[in-house]
Amino acid sequence: MQHGRVDLGQRSETVRRANLSAIVRGLHERGPLSRSELVAATGLTRSAIRGLVGELAAAGLVVERPAPRLGTPGRPSPVVRVEPSATVVLAVELLVDSMAAAIVGLGGSPIEIRRVDRPRGHLAVERVVDDVVALTGPMLRRVDRPLAGVGVAVAGVVRRSDGLVTMAPNLGWVDVPLGRRLAEALGLDVPIAVANDGDLGALAEHRRGAAVGVADVLYVSGEVGVGGGVIAGDLPLTGAAGFAGEIGHMPINPGGSPCRCGSIGCWETEVGEGALLALAGLPPDSGRTGIERVLAEAAAGTPTAVAALEHVARWLAIGLAGLVNVLNPRLIVLGAMHGRIYPAVRATVEAEFVRRTLPGPRSLVRIVPATLGPNAPLLGAAELALEPVLADPAAFLDRDHLPIRLASAS
Amino acid sequence: MQHGRVDLGQRSETVRRANLSAIVRGLHERGPLSRSELVAATGLTRSAIRGLVGELAAAGLVVERPAPRLGTPGRPSPVVRVEPSATVVLAVELLVDSMAAAIVGLGGSPIEIRRVDRPRGHLAVERVVDDVVALTGPMLRRVDRPLAGVGVAVAGVVRRSDGLVTMAPNLGWVDVPLGRRLAEALGLDVPIAVANDGDLGALAEHRRGAAVGVADVLYVSGEVGVGGGVIAGDLPLTGAAGFAGEIGHMPINPGGSPCRCGSIGCWETEVGEGALLALAGLPPDSGRTGIERVLAEAAAGTPTAVAALEHVARWLAIGLAGLVNVLNPRLIVLGAMHGRIYPAVRATVEAEFVRRTLPGPRSLVRIVPATLGPNAPLLGAAELALEPVLADPAAFLDRDHLPIRLASAS
Repeated sequence: MQHGRVDLGQRSETVRRANLSAIVRGLHERGPLSRSELVAATGLTRSAIRGLVGELAAAGLVVERPAPRLGTPGRPSPVVRVEPSATVVLAVELLVDSMAAAIVGLGGSPIEIRRVDRPRGHLAVERVVDDVVALTGPMLRRVDRPLAGVGVAVAGVVRRSDGLVTMAPNLGWVDVPLGRRLAEALGLDVPIAVANDGDLGALAEHRRGAAVGVADVLYVSGEVGVGGGVIAGDLPLTGAAGFAGEIGHMPINPGGSPCRCGSIGCWETEVGEGALLALAGLPPDSGRTGIERVLAEAAAGTPTAVAALEHVARWLAIGLAGLVNVLNPRLIVLGAMHGRIYPAVRATVEAEFVRRTLPGPRSLVRIVPATLGPNAPLLGAAELALEPVLADPAAFLDRDHLPIRLASAS
Repeated sequence: MQHGRVDLGQRSETVRRANLSAIVRGLHERGPLSRSELVAATGLTRSAIRGLVGELAAAGLVVERPAPRLGTPGRPSPVVRVEPSATVVLAVELLVDSMAAAIVGLGGSPIEIRRVDRPRGHLAVERVVDDVVALTGPMLRRVDRPLAGVGVAVAGVVRRSDGLVTMAPNLGWVDVPLGRRLAEALGLDVPIAVANDGDLGALAEHRRGAAVGVADVLYVSGEVGVGGGVIAGDLPLTGAAGFAGEIGHMPINPGGSPCRCGSIGCWETEVGEGALLALAGLPPDSGRTGIERVLAEAAAGTPTAVAALEHVARWLAIGLAGLVNVLNPRLIVLGAMHGRIYPAVRATVEAEFVRRTLPGPRSLVRIVPATLGPNAPLLGAAELALEPVLADPAAFLDRDHLPIRLASAS
């Protein structure tokens, strides 16, 4: 019915599936839980939990173990956890200066991660796709269990429905059908989901990093481009087509410098890696090494480096203030370059932030560095690929590739 | 469980309540539906719909009528609609230059609306509360059916949990416990919910106005202050505490003018009523009359008026561009002053907007004027007050004030 609202109408099979999903998602996100904890958390009866967990265990998606005896009275409640080997996904991360891939199991633990640096610059999508195939081929050949899907994080503006990268200025891409190209090249009979690296970094920090347990989060991740993602009410804010979160392209200084996106004075032009390096007098392509050098020089008191960091810190605070006034997050997680420089510029950021924010939202928000490091978008891509399994484990059980460990399992 | 996720776990009573809610919400938002339409929309069986609708009808919340004979074969499906007199709410709107109140029935139709203009300027909350009591007293005395709640829209930054207005610069308020004060003064034994006028305008335009059926909406409403609201995936974006949507306080021109909020160069300083009037050489407090005069002078070709409108149009587009890049809405609804000036400045807005937005989100979004006029926040306040009834009609049925028409009904 209107806006999916009356779609809430539920019959028993829908309810069974929603309950299976709630259990698998809870275990995936939180780790092992006792049956009693599942009862408390779901509002389901003990016998319903027993039945549903039994179904999931029979299908190999979860495992039950007797609880450790704690010396407390009564029979201890068995502990339930997901079976990581039940199904795995392939995660791929395409950034401007590196490419990475991971095999990740249900529960979110990476089984294998490979990362390769690459020179910056524009690259034809064919070349990138070939490189993905070369990087992931050996990893996929080692996978001895059902593959549920592929998730891809890319440093670009992505339409979620089909993985079209409408713009990735730092890769030189316009309207590149990355999802389709990868599907053809990988030749896997599983869904491929593509999303922006900032959005997926936000997802990963929310599920596994600095923002676990926080419902409203703003994630900022800047290197060559400045991106980010928003979690609102525990859900990723995608917007109408997955384009949301392009915070690097807020016009923050309309009298400022041209941006690679074609606009003027976007936030990225003031707080991106390029701005920091240029202000510090370093080559614009010196990347992470350059950033470390700016930090070292500033620590040693070099005035250019100090001034460059102060400039970025001030504009970082101004942009964050706008986003806090608009979004009212409880936590700001600074990833990549901004997470690295934050300890050095914290006082400047905080002072400017206080001047620019409304008292209400300001009083509730904290700023922290990210904790997942450079793998955040990669782990977010894995979460994206696992989403169909989490959303409807029952449907997944019905597929041909039943999530059971194959005979050849190592 | 984590973030309310495993709270999806459902038992049968929860499901019954969710289904009752789905039906009442669907009828409230969409208007009358046939039983067949309810079946199609909810995925529930015909017999489940019959049973649930029967429960709701017995309690007086909905009414079934035989469908008109259309000459088609088969028995026509009865048409179900909410009973507007089943329960009503009181809606109150506190703006800078006017105050309004409405009695609104289930289904969203106003039964009575009263609006009084008031001089601008700072007002003690006691005075405002007295005025609300004076305005609404006679309306409440005429109500002959159960009152489900009170919703209040106020031109300020509001903490949703308790109706604390942390800041309303145009009323001169800081940390005013408006919700509590109104509860005490009105002396009604029903919940009072307070929210920002922009957020509630967005809600109303989404349910009843220009944005019906659109899942991702940005609503902009500027007069003395510039506010707005965001609908993301059909749900209001509230942020951590209801402060979200303060789009007037994005720092858009950090080298610009001081803002009443204490920051510098907020969007409001460039696109608010005060900016337009000052640029056009009119008294800053000439309000709607002044705006009409600017529009008339611009239509007659007066250069100052034309330039003033062009300035506001350009900055309007710049701010909208940032919000579109961050939020990826499908529709921008311009309310109040911005809706009124839009026809005159559309070309300028569109040209600047195209320069400043990313192609992906730009290609999906349209800009339209609001359709509910000045009553949008008031109608949104009514929707807010009705929310508990929509969310759980079963609980509402169990209360003392059963939603049945009293004997004294006119």
